[in-house]
Amino acid sequence: MSSVVFDSVQRLPHLLESHSLASNVALLFDRNGHRLFCDEISLALKRAKIAHRVFVAPAGESAKSFRVAERLYGEFIKSGADRKTTLVAIGGGAIGDLGGFLAASYLRGIPLVQVPTTLLAMVDSAIGGKVAINHPLGKNMIGFFYLPVFSLIDGRFLQTLPKRDVYSGLAEALKYALIQDAPFLAEFETRFERVASLEPLAIERVIRRSVRNKLRVVKEDFNETTGRRAILNFGHTFGHALEALTRYNAFRHGEAVLIGMLCASALSKNLGFLDEESFERIVRVVKRFPLPKRILKRHFLDLDERAIEAAMASDKKKERGAIRFVLLKKIGEAFLSADRVPSKEIHRATREAKSLLK
Amino acid sequence: MSSVVFDSVQRLPHLLESHSLASNVALLFDRNGHRLFCDEISLALKRAKIAHRVFVAPAGESAKSFRVAERLYGEFIKSGADRKTTLVAIGGGAIGDLGGFLAASYLRGIPLVQVPTTLLAMVDSAIGGKVAINHPLGKNMIGFFYLPVFSLIDGRFLQTLPKRDVYSGLAEALKYALIQDAPFLAEFETRFERVASLEPLAIERVIRRSVRNKLRVVKEDFNETTGRRAILNFGHTFGHALEALTRYNAFRHGEAVLIGMLCASALSKNLGFLDEESFERIVRVVKRFPLPKRILKRHFLDLDERAIEAAMASDKKKERGAIRFVLLKKIGEAFLSADRVPSKEIHRATREAKSLLK
Repeated sequence: MSSVVFDSVQRLPHLLESHSLASNVALLFDRNGHRLFCDEISLALKRAKIAHRVFVAPAGESAKSFRVAERLYGEFIKSGADRKTTLVAIGGGAIGDLGGFLAASYLRGIPLVQVPTTLLAMVDSAIGGKVAINHPLGKNMIGFFYLPVFSLIDGRFLQTLPKRDVYSGLAEALKYALIQDAPFLAEFETRFERVASLEPLAIERVIRRSVRNKLRVVKEDFNETTGRRAILNFGHTFGHALEALTRYNAFRHGEAVLIGMLCASALSKNLGFLDEESFERIVRVVKRFPLPKRILKRHFLDLDERAIEAAMASDKKKERGAIRFVLLKKIGEAFLSADRVPSKEIHRATREAKSLLK
Repeated sequence: MSSVVFDSVQRLPHLLESHSLASNVALLFDRNGHRLFCDEISLALKRAKIAHRVFVAPAGESAKSFRVAERLYGEFIKSGADRKTTLVAIGGGAIGDLGGFLAASYLRGIPLVQVPTTLLAMVDSAIGGKVAINHPLGKNMIGFFYLPVFSLIDGRFLQTLPKRDVYSGLAEALKYALIQDAPFLAEFETRFERVASLEPLAIERVIRRSVRNKLRVVKEDFNETTGRRAILNFGHTFGHALEALTRYNAFRHGEAVLIGMLCASALSKNLGFLDEESFERIVRVVKRFPLPKRILKRHFLDLDERAIEAAMASDKKKERGAIRFVLLKKIGEAFLSADRVPSKEIHRATREAKSLLK
């Protein structure tokens, strides 16, 4: 397993050296990250006399394309990057995915270091080795399981993060509490404001605990073969449907997952797995997350349940036609449902989530 | 390690079933393989009631491109291929490479079966898990180490193989004798005609022994990190240069490697590693391979040594500028040279190989 280091990005040169990764470094940013962070990181490497080059991808999900990958491979080749070149991917989920994809495949694999700069990437996407690019016909269709040698988490990056992205990341952190770490839920119930305002100790506790949770699942089922890793998709069947319906342009990923977790919790209750009291506890926590009102109304509250179900059916997680759901037995215990869930239950849970978010 | 099965392709349905890979199959051919082999294989699967779809790539190295990969991913998605779909790549080296690349990356990896139909693929490229596509700036630049669940070798495929491709495959087989299996050399010295005319028992012995040799190296150094796997590149530093100079359009891969092995053997002798007698033994065997005269003259004999050296320098196997050579200590014992080889020795070995092939 790769390691996760909590430290200042100023320590990146030292960390590269101590992992024997310092002979030659390729830094990958998106346009925004390049503007915000490149100078500081480049200077730190320069001071440590670590040879490095800078590569820049477009911002956002559009970076995860064949076109961008082919261009960057070409720039790697021209720069003389070889198997000893370490690719350091500095950015949010898209850069982590793209950087991981490039590192996994360039010359059949070069060392990768992940430096997540968003909360979502820190608690989820930069941990666990899932990397991918998109196909015009589907998100994350092309990719690998490829672990970074280490991930470096520096909470200081969060200072420049828009508030919506903070809540989006917190939603993925909340997921760990619901699927396998019930005591973690208290963190959201008792310190929500401190965490959301990025009070250093509070947010670091949440990140560390999230990372620990993620690594625990990943370790048990790295290649997603036993079904264990699937519990990380709690809220994602509904969530991906909402994202796909809006072509990933309306909701932040964590917002869609938050709504999806509410739907999946309602479904768990209605199917007789989750007790009423636990469900209400989940509802109370979910409601503390501010969701952008107009987007919520237009792309969830006003949407037909059948449209959401149809979008699920085309999700890549379907297996031989049936939509699979991750459900809760109780808070802190999720499972991948083996049975086909009737359409009317999907619709009912969706309606219930809508009425709760109105 | 994945297994290699020597059997009739008629047994493919049974093999898929016994490996639990029969739920749903994607057959990948190139245009030629599709014409020659698809009906028989498709019928066998149909009889065994194994659901399958057929996908066709262009013939030759041009199949190993982003463009073709993106189109095939799209066809996989549209056909509903999921993580339980087994990709069976039936063809020569290019189809094995492309199929392996697609299987390694589609949905982060689906099961792969290799069914090599050329001698080169049987003794080398379909074994060991190296898969890749090309970048406009370099061959095999983008890829992975991804093992098939099994490789199925059916010597019957060789009946349709052009003679040049038989010799090309035999050259890679000869490589194993030179790098680590001295007794295997006798097979080429005493049965060359029988092997080259594809006498069933003789050719099967060569294939089996080659596979065993390849697996032995791969097992010791799957990810090409210890340097052990590098000995498989014996003859390839010179060989790749000849291929690159002709844009992969003149020589068969094995022909280029054969010439490259002669150059590398001369280099090994001139640098004081290989004794004169062993060198002459190698020369005698190499000379039994017919090489296409006009191509040999135009793209090797008439070529300037400096052009060949320059082409080596841009090879991806260079590390920090120095060209690395695999050399022979003796027949059956290769090593990756640690020292920089002086240009004048590269030129001298090339000239010597030229005069021997005149």
